[in-house]
Amino acid sequence: MYSFKNDYSEGAHPRILEAMLHSNLTQNEGYGLDVHSLHAAELIKGAVGREDVDIHFLVGGTQTNLLAISSCLRPFQAAVCALTGHINVHETGAIEGTGHKVLALPAADGKLTPALVEACLLAHEDEHMVQPKLVYVSDSTEIGTIYSKAELAALSAFCRGHGLFLYLDGARLGSALTCAENDLSLSDIAGLVDMFYIGGTKNGALFGEALVIVNPALKEDFRFMIKNRGAMLAKGFVAGIQFEELFSDGLFFSLAKHANEMAAILKEGVQEAGFSFRSDSPTNQLFPILPDALVESLEQDFSFYRQEKADAGHTVIRLVTSWATPKEAVLSFLDSLNRRNAGLQK
Amino acid sequence: MYSFKNDYSEGAHPRILEAMLHSNLTQNEGYGLDVHSLHAAELIKGAVGREDVDIHFLVGGTQTNLLAISSCLRPFQAAVCALTGHINVHETGAIEGTGHKVLALPAADGKLTPALVEACLLAHEDEHMVQPKLVYVSDSTEIGTIYSKAELAALSAFCRGHGLFLYLDGARLGSALTCAENDLSLSDIAGLVDMFYIGGTKNGALFGEALVIVNPALKEDFRFMIKNRGAMLAKGFVAGIQFEELFSDGLFFSLAKHANEMAAILKEGVQEAGFSFRSDSPTNQLFPILPDALVESLEQDFSFYRQEKADAGHTVIRLVTSWATPKEAVLSFLDSLNRRNAGLQK
Amino acid sequence: MYSFKNDYSEGAHPRILEAMLHSNLTQNEGYGLDVHSLHAAELIKGAVGREDVDIHFLVGGTQTNLLAISSCLRPFQAAVCALTGHINVHETGAIEGTGHKVLALPAADGKLTPALVEACLLAHEDEHMVQPKLVYVSDSTEIGTIYSKAELAALSAFCRGHGLFLYLDGARLGSALTCAENDLSLSDIAGLVDMFYIGGTKNGALFGEALVIVNPALKEDFRFMIKNRGAMLAKGFVAGIQFEELFSDGLFFSLAKHANEMAAILKEGVQEAGFSFRSDSPTNQLFPILPDALVESLEQDFSFYRQEKADAGHTVIRLVTSWATPKEAVLSFLDSLNRRNAGLQK
Amino acid sequence: MYSFKNDYSEGAHPRILEAMLHSNLTQNEGYGLDVHSLHAAELIKGAVGREDVDIHFLVGGTQTNLLAISSCLRPFQAAVCALTGHINVHETGAIEGTGHKVLALPAADGKLTPALVEACLLAHEDEHMVQPKLVYVSDSTEIGTIYSKAELAALSAFCRGHGLFLYLDGARLGSALTCAENDLSLSDIAGLVDMFYIGGTKNGALFGEALVIVNPALKEDFRFMIKNRGAMLAKGFVAGIQFEELFSDGLFFSLAKHANEMAAILKEGVQEAGFSFRSDSPTNQLFPILPDALVESLEQDFSFYRQEKADAGHTVIRLVTSWATPKEAVLSFLDSLNRRNAGLQK
Repeated sequence: MYSFKNDYSEGAHPRILEAMLHSNLTQNEGYGLDVHSLHAAELIKGAVGREDVDIHFLVGGTQTNLLAISSCLRPFQAAVCALTGHINVHETGAIEGTGHKVLALPAADGKLTPALVEACLLAHEDEHMVQPKLVYVSDSTEIGTIYSKAELAALSAFCRGHGLFLYLDGARLGSALTCAENDLSLSDIAGLVDMFYIGGTKNGALFGEALVIVNPALKEDFRFMIKNRGAMLAKGFVAGIQFEELFSDGLFFSLAKHANEMAAILKEGVQEAGFSFRSDSPTNQLFPILPDALVESLEQDFSFYRQEKADAGHTVIRLVTSWATPKEAVLSFLDSLNRRNAGLQK
Repeated sequence: MYSFKNDYSEGAHPRILEAMLHSNLTQNEGYGLDVHSLHAAELIKGAVGREDVDIHFLVGGTQTNLLAISSCLRPFQAAVCALTGHINVHETGAIEGTGHKVLALPAADGKLTPALVEACLLAHEDEHMVQPKLVYVSDSTEIGTIYSKAELAALSAFCRGHGLFLYLDGARLGSALTCAENDLSLSDIAGLVDMFYIGGTKNGALFGEALVIVNPALKEDFRFMIKNRGAMLAKGFVAGIQFEELFSDGLFFSLAKHANEMAAILKEGVQEAGFSFRSDSPTNQLFPILPDALVESLEQDFSFYRQEKADAGHTVIRLVTSWATPKEAVLSFLDSLNRRNAGLQK
Repeated sequence: MYSFKNDYSEGAHPRILEAMLHSNLTQNEGYGLDVHSLHAAELIKGAVGREDVDIHFLVGGTQTNLLAISSCLRPFQAAVCALTGHINVHETGAIEGTGHKVLALPAADGKLTPALVEACLLAHEDEHMVQPKLVYVSDSTEIGTIYSKAELAALSAFCRGHGLFLYLDGARLGSALTCAENDLSLSDIAGLVDMFYIGGTKNGALFGEALVIVNPALKEDFRFMIKNRGAMLAKGFVAGIQFEELFSDGLFFSLAKHANEMAAILKEGVQEAGFSFRSDSPTNQLFPILPDALVESLEQDFSFYRQEKADAGHTVIRLVTSWATPKEAVLSFLDSLNRRNAGLQK
Repeated sequence: MYSFKNDYSEGAHPRILEAMLHSNLTQNEGYGLDVHSLHAAELIKGAVGREDVDIHFLVGGTQTNLLAISSCLRPFQAAVCALTGHINVHETGAIEGTGHKVLALPAADGKLTPALVEACLLAHEDEHMVQPKLVYVSDSTEIGTIYSKAELAALSAFCRGHGLFLYLDGARLGSALTCAENDLSLSDIAGLVDMFYIGGTKNGALFGEALVIVNPALKEDFRFMIKNRGAMLAKGFVAGIQFEELFSDGLFFSLAKHANEMAAILKEGVQEAGFSFRSDSPTNQLFPILPDALVESLEQDFSFYRQEKADAGHTVIRLVTSWATPKEAVLSFLDSLNRRNAGLQK
C-alpha cells in the first residue's frame, strides 16, 4: 500500500548512496572536521552566495531547533512562533526542555507577521513575564504555506528594529524555494535572518540538516553547544558526503522540484474532484478536506495521516509527496479518489 | 598517512551499505517503528537471551548517555562514575546540561568498585548534598580495561542493595566482549545492570547505539524522552537496517574480534620494542608510554592522539584499531616504531 | 496616596512581629528543623484535619510552584492551566525554566473544568507531543473567582481517572475559603488534590507559603528538591514562627475575612455607582470596568493597576484589599469614585 | 545546651526588628522597588565606594550563587571552584541544576590560585570538554581562611587575562573583612571581581544577601533572572529594611567583629589546651582536631558539627561564633573543654 504519510519513508537518493560507497573505506577526521564536511560547507556557502556564514551539519530537525534556539537565549527569554509551529506542537517540549518558554501566536495561515509579533511584545512588558527574544518561522510552514520575500523582509525589519533574533526552520526549505509561487532565494534568506537551516532529511538524504549561522554574534563556540546537547556525530563525514552530493549539480533543488510537481498534480486532481483544502499550499504537503466516508474508503488503498476534524462530517487529511514519489502513485491516488467518491455518491 | 586516532574513521562495513542499498526505495514507517528496527530489536533480544527488554536505537554515545541518565533521575540526584568516565570528561557537560551532577571517583584502572561507591554514599548523607542514584560504568573503559563477570556482579549486588541504578556505557562493548580476557556475555550484562547500550558507531556502523532497558521501571514512556531531547531519527529504519546486519551471522562480534586481534599484534610489538603501557588493556585501545622524541618521529608516518604527559621525557599516546584496520597498517606501525627508535638510540 | 495595588504592601500582622520579637534571641535548629516549624506544621495538620500530610515552608509563590511542579514531572511532561494561570503569565517562564511546557487552556472565568482538560488530553496522543501530567488550578483564581466544592471534586475525579496530578496554588487561599460563596474547607481540598499551598505572603506574613503534600508518592526526598532549587531558608524558624501565629486562634482566617469584607464594600459601592466587573469575584481582588477618563482621574487619589483595555473607551482596573486595608480607605475610594464620576458627567 | 553549630541560630539583631516594627504598617511598592531597598542599595554603594554597581537583595546563599552563576554562562560553560567550595559540596547540585558543570580543584587551604585555575584551563582545550568560564571563590572560605588583597588581585588579573568571570561568595564576608589578618575592603573587592555578594543571613539579618554586580556586561535584565528562578520577594522591602539597618552606623561590621572576637578567644583557649586545627582560620569558623573521646564528652554540654575524621582517634569539629554569641558561652566551652580533657587524661 503506497504511503503519502511523509517525505522520509525511503532511504537516500541513489547518488548519495553511491557517494558513500565510493569513499567508504577512506579514513576521515572525526566530528565534522573531515574534507567532505568542509567541502559541503563550501558548496552551501556558494549556494547561499556568501562566505561569511558558519555551517554546521546536524542529524535532525528537532535537534537543530533546540540547539539553535537555546544557543542564543538567556534563561528568561522566550521563542515566539505560530500556534502551528513545529516547536510548539510536535517536539515534545524540546525547547522548554532547554529552559525556554515558547510563545505561540494564532496565525491562520501558519505565518507570523510584524503585527502579530508586536502584539506579543506589547503584552510582555516587565520582569514578571518572559522576554520574547527569538522569532521562529518555518518555510514552508507546517501547513504547507510559504513566506514571500516581502513578508520575510517585513518580519526581518521588525525583528532588527526590536532586538529580536529571527530563525528560520527549513525542514522543507527545498520545497518552499522550488515551488511556483516562491520569490525567495537562499541568498535572500541569509540576508534576512540570523540563522536558518536547510533540511536534508525530508529532501533525499538519509538524515541531516545544514544549520547556517549568519549573525556573527551567534557563531562563537557553537561546536561546544553541539557536543553539550549530544548532537555531535562521530562520523560527521557521513553528513558531509550527503550535503556534498545534494549541493552538486543542483540535486537539492531538483529533488524538491519533483516533490512539488507530484503535489501539484495531486492538488489539481483533488480540486477537480470538487474538494477544497485547509490551507492554500503550493508545496509538497496538501491538506484536502474530504467526507469522512471517503477518507475511510481511501485508507483501503493508501496510507496518509488524518490531520484533524473539519466539521461533523469531514476530515482534513495530510498528503505528502517527496523526491521519491512516482507519478504512478499520484495518478493511482486520484483514480482511487474519483472511483471511491463516485461509489459513495450512489 | 594511516590513522590510529579512533575506530570511527571509515564508513560502514560493506554488508551494512549493501543492506541499505538493497531496500533503499522501499517505503518504511517513520521514527523507528519500521520493520527493520523491529527485526533488529528481535535479533538483539535473541543475542541478549531475553525477550523482556526494551530496545531503542539512538545516534551517538553522548546522546545515549544523557538520555539514559536523565530519564531516571530526579533533579537532586547524581550519577557516579570513575574520574576517567566519558560522561565526566568528554561530553562537554552534557549530563550536567540535563541538570545532574556527575560525582567522579578516582579509580586507577578506570573501573568502579563497591568500595569506591560506598565511600561516595557515606560522604553524601543529607539533603544539603546531591543524592548519588545512578552508577555509570564503561566496558571496555575509556582506558581500554574491562570488567570481569565477578567485578560487575559485585557492583551490581552493591547497587541493588543500596537502591542505585547501574548503567553500562557500551560504546566499545564489542571489543570488551570479544577480547581474550573477557568472561562476560550480553546475557550476563542484562542480568546485572538496569540499562546498557551496545555501540555500533565504533564497531562498523555509520552511526548508531542500541540502548537496552532491562529494569521494567525505566521502560515507561522512553520514546517521549527520545523526542524531548531531539534524538528521534525520522528515518529510524536506517539505524534498524544497520543493527539487523550487525546482529546477523555474528557480524557485530567478528568485527570487534578483528579490532582486538589487530590491537594484540600492536601490543605485543610495542612490548617487544621495550615499552610499557599506561593501562593493561586487552581491547582495541592501547596507551603506550613512549619517549617524546619517538612520539614526534612517529607522527611523521602515522596519526594518533597524545593522551597525556607521563613524565618529563615521556608521553602516553593512544592507538585505536578497528574493524577496518588492515594488518599491513599494524605491521607498518611496528616497523616504523622499531626503525625510528633504533635511529634515535644512535 | 493609598494603594490598592496588592495585598503585600505592608509588613506583617503585629501578632507575628511580636512572636518574632519574643523568641528573637533563642537558638534554633537551622533549615526548618526547628521547634517552631515543627509546631506550625502540627497546627496546619490540625486545620487540614489529617496527620498524614507533609508540610514544607517556602518563601514565595513562584518558588513554591516551580518546586512543586518540577518535583513530580519527568522531562517530557507538561503542566496544564488556565490561560490566566499565574504559572503561564506572571512567572517569567519559571516552570519552563525547570524544563516543562505549560499548556494553557482558554477559560473565561479563570477556572479549569474536566471538559477543558479532556480536550487537552485528546490533543496530545503520542510521543511527538508533550504529555500532560499535572493540572494546576488557583483558588482564588488570578481574576478573583473561586472553585466550588462540586467543581473541584469533578476536576479531582477526572484527574484521578486519567493519571494526572492535581495541584492547587493557594496564594490567596485564605480569601477563597472565607468568602461568602465558598463551600470548600482545607480538609476538602486535602481530600481532592495531590499538593496545595496555603499562602502567607498575601495574608499577613512577612513572607511564606506552606506547601502541603497529600499524595504519598510525592513526599519522598522533597527537602532535597528545596535545597537543589536554592529555596531552603537557613533561618527556617522565621517562617515557622509566622505560621505558628497564623494558625493559632484562627488568625489566618480572620485576616482573610477582613480583606474580603473590605472588598465586599468596595464591590457594592462600585456596582451602585453603575459599573460592572470583568469577572464575578467574591474575594479580595476586584476588576471594575471604568471609563478611561475616570480611571485617569482616580489615579490622582489612589494607586492601583490597570489590568487591560476593555474596549476603546474603558479600562479594567484591579483593586486589591488585604488584612491591613482600613475601612476608611475603602470608603474614601468610593467617595472619590462617585465625586469624580459625577464631575466627569457634567 | 548552647549551640556552636552555625551563625544563623538566632533571629535578627534587635535594631533590625525595631526598624521593621517602626515601618510595619506603612505601604511599600512590591518586588524590591520600594524606598527601603533603594536606600539600602545607596548605603551599600557608599560602603563599596562606587555608584556604578547594581545591587539586588536576595533571600539566601545557594539562591544567590545559582542566580549569579547561571546568569552569565552559556550552556556548555562551567564554574571553577575549590574542592571545598560551597557550590561543589553543599548546594545539592543547585549549579548543575541550572545546567552547568562545577569543576572542583584541590586546594588545601580552600583558596584558588592562578596556578590552579591555569592548570584547569590547560586541561580543557576543545569542544569535547566543558569550557571553564567563571571562577568562584568564597571569602571567608568554607574552612574559615581568607584571601589577602594580593591573592585576590592575582586571581583577578589572571581571570581578566583569560576571559574568565570572577565571582565572590560573601556569605561570611563580614567576618572576613573584620578579622585581624584582613587587608581587603569592600571597595577593593568591587575593583577586582565581576560580581560578589554581601551576606546578611549569617551576620545578623533574618535573611538576605546583597548581590553586587560590578561588570556592566552582567547587569542587564538581572531582575528577569531573579523572577525566572522564583527568587523575587513580593515584600522586597523586608530585605531592604534589614540592609538599611546593617549599613547604618557600621552595624554590619560591628556584628561581624564581635563574632570574630568570640572566635579568637575560643581559638586561643583551644590552642592553650594543646590542640591544633584543620585550617588556620582567623574568622568565625574554627576547626579544632580533638580526640574522639573528648568530642563525645563535649557533646554533653554543647552542640556543634563533627566535620570529618582526622585520623583513627581524632575528629575535626566545627565551632561557629556569631553576632549573638555571648562571651559566657565561649568561656563556658573552654572551661568544659579543659575539665573534660583533664578528666579523660586520668
